[in-house]
Amino acid sequence: MTDASGPVPGGDSDHDDHDDQDEHGQAGRDGFHVFDTTLRDGAQREGINLSVADKLTIARHLDDFGVGFIEGGWPGANPRDTEFFQRARTEIDFRHAQLVAFGATRRAGIRAADDPQVGALLESGAPVITLVAKSHDRHVELALRTTLDENLAMIRDTVAYLRDQGRRVFVDCEHFFDGHRANAGYAEQVVRAAHEAGADVVVLCDTNGGMLPARIQEVTAGVLAATGARLGIHAQDDTGCAVANTLAAVDAGATHVQCTANGYGERVGNANLFPVVAALELKYGRRVLPGGALAEMTRISHAIAEVVNLTPSTHQPYVGVSAFAHKAGLHASAIKVDPDLYQHIDPEQVGNTMRMLVSDMAGRASIELKGRELGIDLGGDRDLVGKVVARVKERELAGYTYEAADASFELLLRAEVDGRTRRHFRTESWRAIVEDRPDGTHANEATVKLWAKGERIVATAEGNGPVNALDRALRVGLERIYPQLAGMELADYKVRILEGRHGTGSTTRVLVLTEDGEGEWSTVGVAENVIAASWQALEDAYTYGLLRAGVEPTEEM
Amino acid sequence: MTDASGPVPGGDSDHDDHDDQDEHGQAGRDGFHVFDTTLRDGAQREGINLSVADKLTIARHLDDFGVGFIEGGWPGANPRDTEFFQRARTEIDFRHAQLVAFGATRRAGIRAADDPQVGALLESGAPVITLVAKSHDRHVELALRTTLDENLAMIRDTVAYLRDQGRRVFVDCEHFFDGHRANAGYAEQVVRAAHEAGADVVVLCDTNGGMLPARIQEVTAGVLAATGARLGIHAQDDTGCAVANTLAAVDAGATHVQCTANGYGERVGNANLFPVVAALELKYGRRVLPGGALAEMTRISHAIAEVVNLTPSTHQPYVGVSAFAHKAGLHASAIKVDPDLYQHIDPEQVGNTMRMLVSDMAGRASIELKGRELGIDLGGDRDLVGKVVARVKERELAGYTYEAADASFELLLRAEVDGRTRRHFRTESWRAIVEDRPDGTHANEATVKLWAKGERIVATAEGNGPVNALDRALRVGLERIYPQLAGMELADYKVRILEGRHGTGSTTRVLVLTEDGEGEWSTVGVAENVIAASWQALEDAYTYGLLRAGVEPTEEM
Repeated sequence: MTDASGPVPGGDSDHDDHDDQDEHGQAGRDGFHVFDTTLRDGAQREGINLSVADKLTIARHLDDFGVGFIEGGWPGANPRDTEFFQRARTEIDFRHAQLVAFGATRRAGIRAADDPQVGALLESGAPVITLVAKSHDRHVELALRTTLDENLAMIRDTVAYLRDQGRRVFVDCEHFFDGHRANAGYAEQVVRAAHEAGADVVVLCDTNGGMLPARIQEVTAGVLAATGARLGIHAQDDTGCAVANTLAAVDAGATHVQCTANGYGERVGNANLFPVVAALELKYGRRVLPGGALAEMTRISHAIAEVVNLTPSTHQPYVGVSAFAHKAGLHASAIKVDPDLYQHIDPEQVGNTMRMLVSDMAGRASIELKGRELGIDLGGDRDLVGKVVARVKERELAGYTYEAADASFELLLRAEVDGRTRRHFRTESWRAIVEDRPDGTHANEATVKLWAKGERIVATAEGNGPVNALDRALRVGLERIYPQLAGMELADYKVRILEGRHGTGSTTRVLVLTEDGEGEWSTVGVAENVIAASWQALEDAYTYGLLRAGVEPTEEM
Repeated sequence: MTDASGPVPGGDSDHDDHDDQDEHGQAGRDGFHVFDTTLRDGAQREGINLSVADKLTIARHLDDFGVGFIEGGWPGANPRDTEFFQRARTEIDFRHAQLVAFGATRRAGIRAADDPQVGALLESGAPVITLVAKSHDRHVELALRTTLDENLAMIRDTVAYLRDQGRRVFVDCEHFFDGHRANAGYAEQVVRAAHEAGADVVVLCDTNGGMLPARIQEVTAGVLAATGARLGIHAQDDTGCAVANTLAAVDAGATHVQCTANGYGERVGNANLFPVVAALELKYGRRVLPGGALAEMTRISHAIAEVVNLTPSTHQPYVGVSAFAHKAGLHASAIKVDPDLYQHIDPEQVGNTMRMLVSDMAGRASIELKGRELGIDLGGDRDLVGKVVARVKERELAGYTYEAADASFELLLRAEVDGRTRRHFRTESWRAIVEDRPDGTHANEATVKLWAKGERIVATAEGNGPVNALDRALRVGLERIYPQLAGMELADYKVRILEGRHGTGSTTRVLVLTEDGEGEWSTVGVAENVIAASWQALEDAYTYGLLRAGVEPTEEM
């Protein structure tokens, strides 16, 4: 359980290096814990409201990234968290992570076995349980309203009971650093109680986030020396130092770091998983993720932001789109000589890319690269690339975004390459009616008028909303001619209102994700209203799907 | 010029404290430098493009905040910067700050007096000049293309020449920490050359931002011991540690910190002025700003964000709107006992405020606190609070979110308190039609059937989208009865599709922000389609607006 320390040969990192990977089994993999609490503590962030489906998706991303532990929530306290644990057990086949249930020590004055809150932790089926415990004397008295001794007994009993039930237990010492300042002796008694009762890790929490690294390092080193417990760190970012605080604890001997994706969390947030892991891997030379995982970091950071529906921070360390973007003229010439002169790491190590913000040269280069990615070689034709760059700029100015809509971009690119736009169907008109009836029910009806293979088609359908009704009407109309549509399904649908502060008259962007059982593709629509924008995205979605299915387009636009 | 160290009496901060304020004149005020480079290095941030007027406005805000130095730009290199210095001298009456011009050491092979770039620094009229100098041997050779000795001569000559011309000189050692790793002896020669030629401060720059605090502290302490020069720190945030890196250098004896407002800067950004200054004042107990300035921090942070036209980060330490927002039920009960239990500082110290968020994790305590915030005392009635908690949980499970919809929450709360729901109008039915015509134009038409003051109202309107058409129809129908509606306007509109991966059949949540010239309020609607969800949010928005305007509701629901 302890950390086998030793210098990394040839490491050029800033720190003494530790390598606890022996690649030979559990002891080695367990030597350092990357513990993610996005689904529990991260979900406390203002503006985040996760459904069970969202939580399952995020858990899959975190497992892909290779974290060792995923804290899924507080079963029993919240029906959604209870459901998450039920479904995660059967629906996710974790490759790297273990699921962790979060809960509290038993209530004062009862047996752990009789506390339904503790029972719910066992019922979650999670192999690992994190118990939150009070370690600040004033909190025990004011918030928990019990005695200091009873608090220690609550910790001992609950840890021992859960261990008896075959669970691994970590203990989060809430407000540890403030508590240590107020009453260091008691704070250390709490660590000892948890450790001696069988907790595998005792986590020192800077719950209100007010600490700075020097103090974190000093206290962690002292507690480690005094107790011999395996220590972890949980840092909040209220001083803007959560990443540094986490690393300071590691410097002092902590071997378990609790973080959240993109630093989501209450108030300012938690220690951000991505810069913590990147520092450990790239600056400390310490392998804490499976091989190759770090290069997925940028993708996973953005994917999680999409699920929680927050715009990814453009300026996030390592993974932000601006993290390796260079603007200054002073730097630009030096970068031409050697990019390493102005970058602390190679962006590809974290799955990001260098960008030059000097001219549309960057635009050209990325369009060419993108074309190559799609199997369309634009390298030889400067005029064509210029036309595509101009078209993309014009469309992006109008609100389109092609970063998240590969399929729409490919359709645009093909139209420029071919010099004409060909589709499988042509829209004459459509109409959607949404009605709220006096009896409280809604009716959603859509009618589409289309042309395909020379035929005029009029179709009507109902749906659970106007876009759903339009989607169904389009399928009703076209499936006879294009039976391939039956295998395609809308998998996700996102709306963003652009240019806020103009009320409901703003421009609307819709992104649609469509799948056909073999793969998925994204399309975009922009219009002054959500229905019209959705229709554009649907048109692109089915056009691209039919091209994918090998169906030749027939209609010249 | 040196730092008079000594413990602060009664300080409870985490660090050894230094107090270099003697309040008796220049030497005391000069003991610690808060140096702002928002206008020079901060302006390198992707998406920032400052006019001269913008720069003048920001300079005024920074001077109000009480920074000691404002680096305004590179006169001569950029016409806008040249104009800024001309106008700042006459248009701004600085109360606290001195203007600083940024430039480079003389070119290789010529006299400083003959270098027009150096001449432009003098012509700017700035009393202080920051010179950027190379301190990494490889950069001297590859980017500057001169010898190591000539680089030292360039530093000595330029510093001495500017000093002879009566200017104070600071020297920024670019890439100092990488340079020190590559060739510590040369890096220290650069510091000595600058110091001996008369530079008042030699600034160690982590230009590519790759450092972590432990290394910053070690190198800074070593250079201070080796050279005796007064040292400063300039940290970029590429590891997410710029604030901690800045403080680590201060711990090692640096007495000059270079920062930018809101951490703006190239790539990820620079050390953020606000958390650095807050840590120095509140954690180190060190007075680095004029009295009372810290309480202006939140306002000034937001004002500067407005000028650069970037949305203020909601999660910025100390000054973000979420920085003291509390969501978790677990914490809320403790906060009722004592807010200090869950806040590392009193938010008023930095001009911010505590906020309680209502969410599905909310227990009784946060509902009571929220009620108090809204002027509704629920304290005495446990049954009522229980009913509100149950109602909020039920609604949030259905997709509502009240943390971003205060007005809808207040309507819910009032309905529970009154035991009945009263509104100003009742909806019989509505219908929205969106049509895409063969000529490519769209028609959006809505009809609403309402009851108000015993009267049945039927109204129809067109709009630029279905929601806009419904909004207009509602106003057309009701404005005769409630003329107050004319003063209300929809200011923002957000759509979120819940439970992704179910295609267009998902649940939709709409948040609407409405304003009446005196304030703004947020409402929420949830339904299986966007139009129905929008209608709910509109109903709440106008009901709340009419209540705000003092209009009594008439319709029993």
